[in-house]
Amino acid sequence: MRFVDIIIRKRDGATLTDEEIAYAIQAYLRDEAADYQMAALLMAIFFQGMTPAETAALTREMISSGEVYDLSSLNIPFPVDKHSTGGVGDKVSLPLAPLAAACGVAVPMVSGRGLGHTGGTLDKLESIPGFNVRLTREQYFRQLEKIGVVMAGQSDTFVPADKRLYALRDVTGTVESIPLICASIMSKKIASGARALVMDVKTGSGAFMKTLDDSRALAQGLIGVGKEMQRPVHAFITDMNQPLGRKIGNSLEVLESLECLRGEGPSDLREITLRLTAEMLILGGVEQTEEAAFARCVRAIENGSALTKFRELVEAQGGDPRIVDDPSRLEVAPDVAVLEAETAGYLAATDCRAIGNAAVVLGAGRNKMTDSIDHGVGLEMLVKIGDRIEPKQPLVRIIHRGGKGLDECLARLRKAFVIQSEPVAAPPLIYERLT
Amino acid sequence: MRFVDIIIRKRDGATLTDEEIAYAIQAYLRDEAADYQMAALLMAIFFQGMTPAETAALTREMISSGEVYDLSSLNIPFPVDKHSTGGVGDKVSLPLAPLAAACGVAVPMVSGRGLGHTGGTLDKLESIPGFNVRLTREQYFRQLEKIGVVMAGQSDTFVPADKRLYALRDVTGTVESIPLICASIMSKKIASGARALVMDVKTGSGAFMKTLDDSRALAQGLIGVGKEMQRPVHAFITDMNQPLGRKIGNSLEVLESLECLRGEGPSDLREITLRLTAEMLILGGVEQTEEAAFARCVRAIENGSALTKFRELVEAQGGDPRIVDDPSRLEVAPDVAVLEAETAGYLAATDCRAIGNAAVVLGAGRNKMTDSIDHGVGLEMLVKIGDRIEPKQPLVRIIHRGGKGLDECLARLRKAFVIQSEPVAAPPLIYERLT
Repeated sequence: MRFVDIIIRKRDGATLTDEEIAYAIQAYLRDEAADYQMAALLMAIFFQGMTPAETAALTREMISSGEVYDLSSLNIPFPVDKHSTGGVGDKVSLPLAPLAAACGVAVPMVSGRGLGHTGGTLDKLESIPGFNVRLTREQYFRQLEKIGVVMAGQSDTFVPADKRLYALRDVTGTVESIPLICASIMSKKIASGARALVMDVKTGSGAFMKTLDDSRALAQGLIGVGKEMQRPVHAFITDMNQPLGRKIGNSLEVLESLECLRGEGPSDLREITLRLTAEMLILGGVEQTEEAAFARCVRAIENGSALTKFRELVEAQGGDPRIVDDPSRLEVAPDVAVLEAETAGYLAATDCRAIGNAAVVLGAGRNKMTDSIDHGVGLEMLVKIGDRIEPKQPLVRIIHRGGKGLDECLARLRKAFVIQSEPVAAPPLIYERLT
Repeated sequence: MRFVDIIIRKRDGATLTDEEIAYAIQAYLRDEAADYQMAALLMAIFFQGMTPAETAALTREMISSGEVYDLSSLNIPFPVDKHSTGGVGDKVSLPLAPLAAACGVAVPMVSGRGLGHTGGTLDKLESIPGFNVRLTREQYFRQLEKIGVVMAGQSDTFVPADKRLYALRDVTGTVESIPLICASIMSKKIASGARALVMDVKTGSGAFMKTLDDSRALAQGLIGVGKEMQRPVHAFITDMNQPLGRKIGNSLEVLESLECLRGEGPSDLREITLRLTAEMLILGGVEQTEEAAFARCVRAIENGSALTKFRELVEAQGGDPRIVDDPSRLEVAPDVAVLEAETAGYLAATDCRAIGNAAVVLGAGRNKMTDSIDHGVGLEMLVKIGDRIEPKQPLVRIIHRGGKGLDECLARLRKAFVIQSEPVAAPPLIYERLT
């Protein structure tokens, strides 16, 4: 088998065999094929796509490149994970994981760090004093057995093929390929032990996928690969034309997650969290209908079991559990500025990516992976699309540290709000559910 | 400017600016961009194509990467070259170059070597004892001024970008891209001093372009780039469903070229040679109409001036000019075998590529560039498509050396002839002329 022939077959629209895909990945990882050949193959895949079976074969090869957590021998409920394509203020994983565990599925959640305008679950968790996201295999397994939920960073031993391929895709213009995205997501989720996945595909100005069509294509791609691999995937397409909830920034998002777990906080965050968690219960076989699953989630919040599970989670991973009942123990930056509306009208749209980047310049996120972050800074959104806006009305509270990044943050925010004179309907929160 | 942004723009169908194309080529040649980035860009170009203006910008950048022969200060007629996409038995350059020079255009012809099933002009010329294809710039210029024709190998200093890009295309499945092929051809032709070009695009089973549509697209691509660069290109699409002429192999093709220059030899070779040379005369301003140009070519053969020019060419480049009047001085392998027809009928088709490869296994060509070749071996085709075939009728004479490669040659040839019971029309020799 020659790598160039595989490139040419994909280029010309053929469906690659499992053997060809295995050869391509293995030859690449053994350095028998060059980066330039893999780059050409990735670009050919960008144009010609891959069938679900091809994507599954790619996913399997990527998984085989590293360690796999086989949870089947553990004494745990059915393990279900959730993945989001990323957005601004998307802290759903924080309330969702303990809520799902409290409702009777196991949650082996492996997350990432923030980059660019989107935050990362690991960074948010690390704003809890002492919280450790780097778990050994033994810690991961033991904690799952003990409390049914773990939230960790990806081990370096998971899917090394994905790290190499992603680095190559990033510099060769081949990131935006549905089958490559699907293989990247699914390989990591399956390697970390999940048997089913709820997928939150964000759509809109702050999302990776800007259009509903693209978002749907990604959701369908993931569902297709999941079917091929006997790892059921249910997907929601949810709105990212404005930040989710009110708070953006690491400590701030933990605060809002605690509100959510207490049955308080913004209604959009609550709705998304409950819907996604309910879907996990269905995939985990805990409930048969969306209604029953949703009601079970509501009960777990009302009776405090979700909050208790979060406390167990924090404690199990070395964090200070007192933050759960005394959120003032979370370090929040001391300085506050406010962006006020310049004109009256209705909030018609936000540039959600610009809002995310406005938080990054305060120090809440990273432009490159080696940047350090300030867990205490961030934004609090005071308005939602559709709201009536009066002149001088506060739009955003900016929680900063001694003015660092404040001017640029304000400049970015000022351009991120579109206020018009006609009333505007709020966008839907959930566009579609796909299974 | 970032290379990855250029990749993404081309991937998404944008027309690249001259600056972007210049940046991409220069960054690549300076090793500031990696092979994998160029590979991704080449694959994006494969799918999205390039406008004539983009292809011209690419061609210009490739030319700028090396030495350029500026012939404008020489005391020579208008310099016109011919290029063929390559075929089996395609020795047209050998009679054409001296014929065109004898008719009053300058012919600065830079050729290549054979690879795979197609032969190369340089190899054929080197079967003439003493013939030197490696000329210095001074020899090249002086010979053009003295006799108006030069047939040389490409200097290493010409278009180094093409060598790097071609090597990368070869292993990344990006050879078959019309704009990349056009830029490769045009950059070398322009660097070697041609001001106009006659293009012979072969089509059929022995050609690089298998279909008339692909051949036409390549011809139109070359014409388009030529217009952009004020280097007029006229193109013919000619048949390569069977070998051109009768003889295949290096000495054998020189022999047949001499026949052609004497007004003898196969009519298909004569027809193509005269039509292409006539087109060179039109591009060179020697004649205004195809008829007049064709007639001038016929006269130059009849009055011996073309043959005289060939003798001058051989002598100028160190070859033994006695081969012109005594072709028996050309070394031809001593052993002959014959492939006979097994059934009666009409020759309906040949696998022209297989016939070319059958000559390669005798030693007439190369599978890789480092293979040595035997100038004396080859094939003589005794039938043409459409011919009535009787049982045991000789189809091919095989000129071999002590049986080397003979069995495999015969095995390949046996599968290369399709004989059927119904009469078959001969294919056209020239499908289209495009300007």
